[in-house]
Formats: sequence, C-alpha cells, structure tokens
Amino acid sequence: MANAVRRIGVFTSGGDAPGMNAAIRSVVRTSLHMGIECIGIRRGYNGLVNGDFIPLDFESVSGLSRRGGTMLYSARSEDFRGEAGQEKAVATCKLLGLEGVVGIGGDGTFRGLLELSRRGVAVVGLPGTIDNDIACSTYTIGFDTACNTALDSIDKLRDTMQSHERCSVVEVMGRHAGHLALYVGVACGATCVLVPERPVDFEADVVEPIRRARLGGRTHFMVIVAEGVGSAYDVAKKITEATSLDTRVTVLGHVQRGGAPTARDRVAATYMGYEAVRLLAEGKSNRVVCVQGDTYVDYDITEALKMKKGLDEQTYTVMRALTGVEQR
Amino acid sequence: MANAVRRIGVFTSGGDAPGMNAAIRSVVRTSLHMGIECIGIRRGYNGLVNGDFIPLDFESVSGLSRRGGTMLYSARSEDFRGEAGQEKAVATCKLLGLEGVVGIGGDGTFRGLLELSRRGVAVVGLPGTIDNDIACSTYTIGFDTACNTALDSIDKLRDTMQSHERCSVVEVMGRHAGHLALYVGVACGATCVLVPERPVDFEADVVEPIRRARLGGRTHFMVIVAEGVGSAYDVAKKITEATSLDTRVTVLGHVQRGGAPTARDRVAATYMGYEAVRLLAEGKSNRVVCVQGDTYVDYDITEALKMKKGLDEQTYTVMRALTGVEQR
Amino acid sequence: MANAVRRIGVFTSGGDAPGMNAAIRSVVRTSLHMGIECIGIRRGYNGLVNGDFIPLDFESVSGLSRRGGTMLYSARSEDFRGEAGQEKAVATCKLLGLEGVVGIGGDGTFRGLLELSRRGVAVVGLPGTIDNDIACSTYTIGFDTACNTALDSIDKLRDTMQSHERCSVVEVMGRHAGHLALYVGVACGATCVLVPERPVDFEADVVEPIRRARLGGRTHFMVIVAEGVGSAYDVAKKITEATSLDTRVTVLGHVQRGGAPTARDRVAATYMGYEAVRLLAEGKSNRVVCVQGDTYVDYDITEALKMKKGLDEQTYTVMRALTGVEQR
Amino acid sequence: MANAVRRIGVFTSGGDAPGMNAAIRSVVRTSLHMGIECIGIRRGYNGLVNGDFIPLDFESVSGLSRRGGTMLYSARSEDFRGEAGQEKAVATCKLLGLEGVVGIGGDGTFRGLLELSRRGVAVVGLPGTIDNDIACSTYTIGFDTACNTALDSIDKLRDTMQSHERCSVVEVMGRHAGHLALYVGVACGATCVLVPERPVDFEADVVEPIRRARLGGRTHFMVIVAEGVGSAYDVAKKITEATSLDTRVTVLGHVQRGGAPTARDRVAATYMGYEAVRLLAEGKSNRVVCVQGDTYVDYDITEALKMKKGLDEQTYTVMRALTGVEQR
Repeated sequence: MANAVRRIGVFTSGGDAPGMNAAIRSVVRTSLHMGIECIGIRRGYNGLVNGDFIPLDFESVSGLSRRGGTMLYSARSEDFRGEAGQEKAVATCKLLGLEGVVGIGGDGTFRGLLELSRRGVAVVGLPGTIDNDIACSTYTIGFDTACNTALDSIDKLRDTMQSHERCSVVEVMGRHAGHLALYVGVACGATCVLVPERPVDFEADVVEPIRRARLGGRTHFMVIVAEGVGSAYDVAKKITEATSLDTRVTVLGHVQRGGAPTARDRVAATYMGYEAVRLLAEGKSNRVVCVQGDTYVDYDITEALKMKKGLDEQTYTVMRALTGVEQR
Repeated sequence: MANAVRRIGVFTSGGDAPGMNAAIRSVVRTSLHMGIECIGIRRGYNGLVNGDFIPLDFESVSGLSRRGGTMLYSARSEDFRGEAGQEKAVATCKLLGLEGVVGIGGDGTFRGLLELSRRGVAVVGLPGTIDNDIACSTYTIGFDTACNTALDSIDKLRDTMQSHERCSVVEVMGRHAGHLALYVGVACGATCVLVPERPVDFEADVVEPIRRARLGGRTHFMVIVAEGVGSAYDVAKKITEATSLDTRVTVLGHVQRGGAPTARDRVAATYMGYEAVRLLAEGKSNRVVCVQGDTYVDYDITEALKMKKGLDEQTYTVMRALTGVEQR
Repeated sequence: MANAVRRIGVFTSGGDAPGMNAAIRSVVRTSLHMGIECIGIRRGYNGLVNGDFIPLDFESVSGLSRRGGTMLYSARSEDFRGEAGQEKAVATCKLLGLEGVVGIGGDGTFRGLLELSRRGVAVVGLPGTIDNDIACSTYTIGFDTACNTALDSIDKLRDTMQSHERCSVVEVMGRHAGHLALYVGVACGATCVLVPERPVDFEADVVEPIRRARLGGRTHFMVIVAEGVGSAYDVAKKITEATSLDTRVTVLGHVQRGGAPTARDRVAATYMGYEAVRLLAEGKSNRVVCVQGDTYVDYDITEALKMKKGLDEQTYTVMRALTGVEQR
Repeated sequence: MANAVRRIGVFTSGGDAPGMNAAIRSVVRTSLHMGIECIGIRRGYNGLVNGDFIPLDFESVSGLSRRGGTMLYSARSEDFRGEAGQEKAVATCKLLGLEGVVGIGGDGTFRGLLELSRRGVAVVGLPGTIDNDIACSTYTIGFDTACNTALDSIDKLRDTMQSHERCSVVEVMGRHAGHLALYVGVACGATCVLVPERPVDFEADVVEPIRRARLGGRTHFMVIVAEGVGSAYDVAKKITEATSLDTRVTVLGHVQRGGAPTARDRVAATYMGYEAVRLLAEGKSNRVVCVQGDTYVDYDITEALKMKKGLDEQTYTVMRALTGVEQR
C-alpha cells in the first residue's frame, strides 16, 4: 500500500522532557523503514517559521534514545502565534515538500498543529511533558524520568533530614498539575503532598500528618509541594510556626527536566514515534497519539484538547492510610 | 464497619524483587490505619512452618520504601511442599491468631496461598517478580527497577562497545519469559532481542539486523538474550562465525534483582499493599491483587493461575521498524 | 601491647556528610578488633551533655558504609558552648567510663574536642564535611559524594539548558569555601565559577567567558556560584542585563549533603576510622586524622586549627585555558 | 614565548576508560588556547598507520567530558608492532605536520610512544586505564568511575544476597592488578578480597573471614575476586564445599569500562590533558603525566616503564581489622 506522505518533518516544542530524543529517533527510523523521508525542524514552531531544519538519516539518530533534552532544540514561538507566522510555517512546509509533521510537546504544541492542519498540512501530536497533564493520555513522555529524578533527590534529602531531625519542604515542578507531586509523594513516603488542584487546609493537610508521624516515632518529615501551590518557603515558615520544627526548603527546579530517560520513557517514546508515522502513512491527520493504561490509541486533536484530567482520588485514600491520617 | 480480620501476617517468597519492602510497609501501615495488627513472617513459607516471625509497628517500616531486597527475607520452602509442612504452617497461624496472610511473590507463592486457604486461612497474593510473568497482571512489582538496572548497565556497555567497535551480547534475566529482555531491548535500541517464547532463526533474527545496522552506518551492535534462550556465549560465538565481529559477552545476573526501587515500583507496591489489606478487611480471600493498565483489580487465585500471558507482538513490529528489518 | 583505652565513644557533629556512617562503622569494628568497647554518642555534643547514647556491636554497624546521613544523628549544641555543658559532657564520659572519644565533623567539632581534652578525655577528630575546608587535610569525608551529586544534577541541567539554549546559574554549597564549586566547575566544563575566596570582576570573570564560549559555537552556558558569593538570582539577573541571555537559576541545596557515599568517601572514612582508634589505643590524644595526597597522617588539633587552606591556583589556569579566556 | 610545536595529534589506545573523552577535550581546548592546532587520530596506533584522523575544534569537543568511551575509538594495533607500521605512523605524522602527539592509555601505549619518539616525533603519554596499574602514577584516568560502577552493582547484589542469605562471589576487572578489587572491597565492606598479587590461602583468606562474619551475626557474605586470580565459579564452588553456603557468582565484566565519568575522573583527565599540551609546548618530549597524591608531575617514559607498583599493604591491615580477622 502506498504511503499517504512522502516526506515529513518532526519537531519538539514547549518545555523539553526526557524521552523527546527517543521519540525523534523513532519517528526518523520508522519513516525510513516505511520509505518516507524525514526532516528535523529545529527550535519548535520557530523552525517552521524561519526554515531552520536539518536532514536526518539512520545514523544521525543512533544512540539518541539515552540522551536527555532534545537534539532539535525547543522553544516557544511568538512569531507562530500570529497569522503571518503561521503562513510562513506553511510556506516552509510547501518549500521543503513536507506533507506531514509530527510535533512533540504539550497542549500548546497541539493547538499549533491544529493551525497547520487547517492550512492543509497533515499533523500528528505526541504528548511530551514531565507534568503528565495531557488529558487524553494516561501517560506523557518524560513523566517517569522526572519522577525518578525528583525521587532520587528526595531520597538524598531524607538522609540529611534524618541526621538532623528536620522537616524537609520540597518544591517539585507542576504549575497547574499535581500529578508529579502526588506520584513522587507516594513513592517517597511523604508526610503530606500539596497540589494546586486541591485547596489546602493547613491544619488537616499538613500539621496533622506531621503530628501523626511524630506520634508514630518519626523525628524527620517530608513535605512535597507542587510549584503551583505557592512558595515552598511560605509553607516552611507556617510549619515552623505551627510545630517549632526546624525546616529546610529545596526547590528541585529544572534538574527535573533533564537526564537520561528511564526505560519507561524510552519505550513509550519509541512506540509513540512509531504510531505517529504509521498514522501519517495511512493518511490520517489531526491526531494525538495517546496511551490508555498499556494500550496506544489516538484521538482527534480537537477532541483531545477538550478532555479533562483529574487527580487520582485513590492516591489520597492510600496516602492517608499510610500516614495514619483520617480521611477528610 | 467491623474488619473481617483482627490480626494478619505478611511475607515474601520466591526470588526477591525491588519494591517488596515498599509493599510490606504498605501492608503494615494500612493494617494499623484500619485497626488490624500485622506480624512479619520471615523467610517465606519457612517462617510459617517454623514460627519465625517479628512484630511490626508504624516506625519499624519507616524509610523502608527505598530499600531493595526484603526485610522479611525470602526463600523457597521444601518443608511447605508436603502435607506435614502445610499443617505446621496453619498451626502457626492459629497459634499466633493470624486470621489472614498476605504473600508477596510469584505463581509458586500463590499456589502456596491456595493451600493455606483450603485449610481456612484468609489469603491475598501480591505479584512481586522482576520477570513480569504473572498472567493476571500487566505489571509486577520489581519489573521497572530491573529494567532500569539492566538498561543502565547496557548504556555503560554501549560506551565501551562503541569505542572498540564491538558487538555486545548481553544476557538478561528471564528463564521462561522474555518481557524484561524485550522491554530493555526497545529501550536501549538493541540490534536484536532473543526470547524463550519465540524460536530463533539465527540468520533472520540476528545476522540480518546486524547487517542492516552496519549498512546504516553503525560499527557497534547490541544483542540482548533472555536467560532462557540458552547460553549468551554460544550466541556470541555464532555471531563471530557469521560476521567476523569482535564480540563481548556480559551476563547481568543477580544485580538485576537489587537496588533501590524506582518510583513506579514503589507506587505500585504501595497501592497493592493497600488493596491486599482492604480485601482481607472486607472478608475477601483467595484473591490476587493485579494491575490492568493503570487500574488495580483483583482475581480469584485459581482463576489467575489458569491465565496465560503472551509477549506483546507490537513490540516486534516497532522494533523491526526501528532496526530496519523486514517483518517475518 | 595493652591498649591505652578500654572503652571509647564516637559521635558526629555539625553538618552531616556522606561517609560519616562508614567512619562510624570503621571506628566500631576496629575497636572490637582491638579489644576496645565502643559506645555511640547521639546528636553530637548534646549526647555527651545529656547522656544520650547507644551501645554498638559488630552487627549493629553492618551494611552501614553505603548509607548516607549519620545513624548517630548530628546537631550543633548550644549547651556545650558553656562551661556547665562542658563539665556535664565530661561527667558523662566518666559515668560511662569513656577513656577516649572520636568526633567526626569540622573545625567546630575539633574545637569542642580540645575542651574535652583539657578536662582529661583522650580525643581524636576526623574531618567530615562536604566543603573540604579543613586546612590540615587535603581531603574531607563527604566531599567526593557531594561533588558527584552536584555534577549529576548539573549534567541533567545541561540537557535542558542545551534544548532551550539558555544560561544556567547553579548555586552549590560553600558558604566560606569554594573547593566544591571549583572542583565541580572543572568537572562539568563550566563556563565560569565564582567562589567566595576571590573577588569577582563581573566583566572579566563572567561576561567574557560567556562571550568566548558563544564565539566558539556554544549556545548554552553553565555558571557555577558558591553559596558564599551571594545570591545566584542576582548573578543571573546581571548576566541577563549584560548579555540578554535567557537564564535559569538552580539552588542545589541540601541534596548535596545526602546520598550513598562514593567509593572514595567510603574508603577514606574507613581508613580514617581505623587510624582514629589506633591513635587512641596507642595512648595518643588531641589529634586530627588527615590525608595528604594518598597518605594518612595525624596532626595536633591546636596546630591543625591554625593552618590555612587556599584554593588551588592551578585550577584557574587550567579552567581558563579550557574556556579560552586569558589569564588575569 | 613561542610554542615548540604548532600542530599536534591526540589518540586513545588499548582498553578504553571513562574520562578519556574529558582528556581529549582538555588536550584540544588547551591546544587552541595556546595557539596550537590539534588533530584527532582515530583507533589508536592504527589511525597513525593508516592516516585515519579528524580535525577538532572548540565546539567539536563541547559536552564531551561527561561521555563515557572515547570519541576517537580505541584499538590494539598489530600493524604498529612491526618496523613497517611504525614507519608508516611516522610518515603520517610528517604528512599531517604533527610535531607532537599525546597518547592516552596504559603501558603498551607508552611503549608505542617511545618508538615514535625514537623516530623524531615529540610525545607525551597520559595514564588512562581502569586498572590503576601504571607504576609512575598513584592514579589513572578511569579508576574512580570503574570503582563506583562496580560498587553500585555490588550494593545492588547485597540487597538480594541479604534477602536470600547467600554468599555473593563477584569477579571484578584486573587481570594482573588487584587495585580495583581491593578499593572496591574496602568500600563495600567485603568479607574478603582475592587479588592476583597475593597467593591465596583459602582457609585463612576466605573461610575464616566468612566464619568471623557469621559469628558476628551476618547471614550474607560478599567475596570480591579480581579477574586474574582465576575463575570466580571455582572460588564459589570451594566456598560451598567448605561452608555449605548458597553461593551466587556475578562477573561484572565490561560494564566497568563504561559510563559517565565521575567528578574525580573528569578533573584528573582535564588537568592531565592540560599538562600534556603544556609539556609539548615547552619543547619537552618522552614524558608521562602522572599524579602523586594531589600533585601533577611528569616522568621520562623509559623511567616510568621501569617502575613497580605494589598493593597498598595498609589496606589489608584495615580490612582485616574491620572483618575481625587476625593478621597473617
């Protein structure tokens, strides 16, 4: 069966995430395997606007799976937001003969793909963000690596907090979503976890779990705060006021975005890259590749952007049980 | 609502797996939270046979999630295989007043639980094995850590294989199951992966992928062999004969069983431990806690033991696409 | 030959450092081997003042080398600063029959040992601090682990800084000493390193190296700032003003104090623990165990406290050569 | 002052070691800084014989410090062993105008440099081998990374050996030298360590330490065997015969050669690379750059090759104290 596309482009956009390189490699290799040419667009939508690209072959993506970051660079593009920029992007696609593009990123990336699609370019999006906040997919490329990076740092913090019998307040990434904070919180056995999706009752959500742990014999404590909740320094100050504990704040920051991707991120990225090219080859467009549990599926981008993703409520049930705190 | 059990035991059995400690911690903490007493049985079924146990409280499992191995020790029990041993085990349960037990391990562990159950002890099994070969669950505690440990070693091997332009033949664990080998193979971008579930056509499955990679520009190669396929040394010898490549064999071995569990293993173990106690508290017995995609469910042990789990065929499709090899 | 002491105490004091546990294990095991009893004093000098201690035997320190933190806890002691506290500490030694004590920490710890020594207790100090700022020793327990922890985070940061073509400003520990910053800076190939020991000429020390790197082809930059230099946020702001670069600040913080110690820290701690007990057994007192290059030696504490340690000037020569910047 | 050389080559030879890339980067960057051109010779002496080289500039070695392996590939060269090969190598130097070469590797590499030197090429050697078996230098590039890689695996093994109460027999690299085995043995708290430099008294060196540990309360054991001692499988078999312990063998193998270099290896490699170019620029030849403790020095190659390096006897004293075994 003939492929619906003969030449495609691939790019990464928005905040980078570990595994993006593995996805690029998979898109390139799958294309070659299917007899499709693949071009790398650099610096996200800017590359489409400005014609910033590199040819990619089998060997140019060798050994790429294990590398953090993205070899195609990433950026947010002011130019692409306007009509003029979008037309320049489409003109670049025409000039280069790109019949399809694969964009790896988050919701912003997908909205950009919609614009290209409206102008006649076949598009597929891949969910790549450490926040795991893309509604249509239970998993996003980069989440697992970010969780393990945060966890590794928190394990180290626990050593020194235990030695000094302190309360650690750790800010993890997540401006609008608490998935990372919650997952890491369960994994590290946090005393409590604060996320932007749930209003914080300081007495019930922070002080009581600390008390419970102290009553249970603990003399050090681990409080996880998602970025979007507010300043970890404020949380620490309030803890000291309420409990007299000696607190230390750590803001894990951009470290969470880097590093060699974990097995899970490499595998998910590899599968998703394959699916993206398969969809384009079959003449599909306007799709996001997603994972539901262990199954790879795809959604219409417009539908996908309308979906909502809540926090896993069971996490709270489990976490409160383990920290000995009554359910609210 | 009153709990169906007032005192339970927890033990680990069979080959150990990273995350078993996190599961133990979760069982203990959830029990305490629900007002159930929890006793640790040591050395698997031997502990039940011989009355080898320790009391466990809130603080005794603190900081346990991050530890590899199992604080309750593990073992295979000859004694428990016979009628006499099984009766001694039940007698221990009666003496200690254990109304339920949670056993963490593989199919062998679950078959033992059935025996206890037939003699009137309420039982729940948790899937803990690095092989991910428990049919009823898409995921088993320890698999993710083992994959990342193997991957980390393979990344290191790649460095030196690349320097010397050699072909690396790596034996990973998996006597009867190739899940670990396949997952790691996709993650590391292996040239090819050999698993016990599929007969090996050496020319098509090994030599051709190596040739394809060489034609694509590669000068080093990574061949992953699951333990059950046969000797990695034999595979290496045949590769050298067929291709004249300089090969090096690495048997990753028991290293894959240890190490601090990853975020995923700690989270899965924590959820599963919670579910196990919840089931016992609700008066359920003869259940295995499983995960299907991202959802935690439970099955009747007898049913669970009858299920079959095949390899993910799509993995082959994806992997062959990426290595440029035609489908068989 | 009879030992000069029959029972000794060991404690950790001041900021904890990875490897302190390995040193404790070595002190305990060496004591037992030499026929000396060893008691663990908890929470630094507070433990001596308050009689807070635990007995230690062969098995109680098993598996301890690999653990971060300190099993004996650490603290700064207000009580011990006064005459009354010091007398209470000596009274504790007398009550417990401690003829010698080994204190692991920094200069503050050694000054405390001097007070004990003046009151008749035999004392030996071991240099344990991640800052490597103890003048008499070219190496201190914890430095290597802290360097590798910082380096690992910086490697991750580099991934994301490269993807986004940003300038990373990383604050590492070191209030008064830049050893950690400099070592890590050389190891990570930093664009420049700012330390408290050298006044900063912003144009020559920061802007020019960034320009050189940009001229050489780099589009991302790594600036390392030791804590004592001032706020990393201020440095970042000045860089943006001077260069228009997009900067991101990371404060590595207490993560650098934790984690499983590296081989080097475990080995150094093990040797030093041995030497400490040997000295006490031989009737020596008032000594600090040090390392000079690869040789373990010991100094009089009073002499040791008078020594000065400068930064390694050659580091600057090498680093400037590598970043292409002219010597100042 | 004018440089004695205007264009130099750099290559890596023999078994690769983590940090070689950092050394290459340092040689290239220092050369550029001093106004010397630097060419990369590929595949060790083969590259000189066959004219296999690449030009290197500032950016081509960017981000290289953190990479394991060697970007210049390594190999042993049959051709260079003969007169004809050596003359071809010198002819390549003349053709390319290489007035000096820096060779990174072990004693074999240095002997090759001597041949070049006799034919009029200025040469400097850098000690790069994970074995730390170069007599003139207390430290060789790659040793620290290899130790930490081995240690990390052994820590993982300890988890599973502890769970199953087994005796682990671990073979580490070291065909003729036990430095790696001994260092790792002290770091991991091994029950005993067998090295090729010392004849093994099985009863005193293996069985007695195991007994001592068992008497002290241990139920798992860690035996480290350097490759050159003989088969780890034979050692395990003898242990089982003598003690009835359940043993498991792990051969760590080539994994020890790879991986991102540690801070120490990157720093040592960076300094040494700088020193190598400085020596050539000053008109020196026939030198090996070495480290003595913390000081970088250089020796005449002929002198260096005559030196001998024994095992550190104190390691035995310390290790036996810690394992509770009497001195032999």
